[in-house]
Amino acid sequence: MSTAGGFVEYPVENVHRLIEPGPVVMVSTFDGRRANLMTNAFNMPVAHGALIALVLGPWDHSYEALSATGECVIAIPSVDLAERVVDVGNVSGGDVDKWQRFGFTPAPGAVVRAPLVMECFANIECTVADDRLVEDHGLWILQGERAWYDAAKRGAGEFHHRGDGTFSANAATLDLRHRMTKWRYLTGD
Amino acid sequence: MSTAGGFVEYPVENVHRLIEPGPVVMVSTFDGRRANLMTNAFNMPVAHGALIALVLGPWDHSYEALSATGECVIAIPSVDLAERVVDVGNVSGGDVDKWQRFGFTPAPGAVVRAPLVMECFANIECTVADDRLVEDHGLWILQGERAWYDAAKRGAGEFHHRGDGTFSANAATLDLRHRMTKWRYLTGD
Repeated sequence: MSTAGGFVEYPVENVHRLIEPGPVVMVSTFDGRRANLMTNAFNMPVAHGALIALVLGPWDHSYEALSATGECVIAIPSVDLAERVVDVGNVSGGDVDKWQRFGFTPAPGAVVRAPLVMECFANIECTVADDRLVEDHGLWILQGERAWYDAAKRGAGEFHHRGDGTFSANAATLDLRHRMTKWRYLTGD
Repeated sequence: MSTAGGFVEYPVENVHRLIEPGPVVMVSTFDGRRANLMTNAFNMPVAHGALIALVLGPWDHSYEALSATGECVIAIPSVDLAERVVDVGNVSGGDVDKWQRFGFTPAPGAVVRAPLVMECFANIECTVADDRLVEDHGLWILQGERAWYDAAKRGAGEFHHRGDGTFSANAATLDLRHRMTKWRYLTGD
């Protein structure tokens, strides 16, 4: 397994396991000059593996960099970072260097020029796979190319935006793998 | 406010609050003869309000009914129903009447012919808004037309698929509305 920025590689065929729970994520981009960071909770898996849909529109400062480069990193923060992650979502990268302001550290990935976020427990390097719905809906289909993981940073795990400025942390995990009779191939290691 | 099936109406402009946390949902369809029910965790809001993306492909029995009618209901179950909801996702509606088998009760909605699911705490009546990515990705853009809610049935709230047959329940809610300075219009009642 490779490493990048102190992370171990996460199997790209299992990236849906990171996105399917509906996490608040951060999106990192690089416009050729500066790296930017934004917060996003409009995302989902499109297929098992690493095909991901993400809504990011012209109202976001990161839109230009994503459009120009066709690349980004989706980083998943644990709930311990919730306050700083929300703060990242409440200023524009046009005005401030959000990495510096909110204490996030860029690290080079393996495939795209947008940086990984060291403080997050997972980072997915993505390229644009389908932009047909970008103009009308700001909806990008992204292909995860490589993914990076740090189990120790996962802590209490991802968190979820309730759409109104309140967020849910995760409680206990229910293990219902024995009932997933139709989907055995999804439940193994 | 209207009522349907014992639910009160939920403001359709706030439907993203139901979808944004990344819930496991059930999708109800009606093919003109029979209602079907399936389980889904590939969904997200596309815009604030009730524009929703949902992945549902030809591999799902419900695909034909959704394609033919352009209508469905997205129903959100509480974690108390997790085992039955997982079971719904592990048999095909081509083989069994899942409503009867798993104890879910259809109720008429206001706009679409697909039934609401009485046991769920929220039901969103949807029509197809954009099907350009259906052929390649099974990705539907749905417009929520009306939504229905039962606070008492919400219980411990929605739950999240971790993509491998394990599921997260919600723990405490973090109230970070005071930090959502850029998004005041989202945080009010």
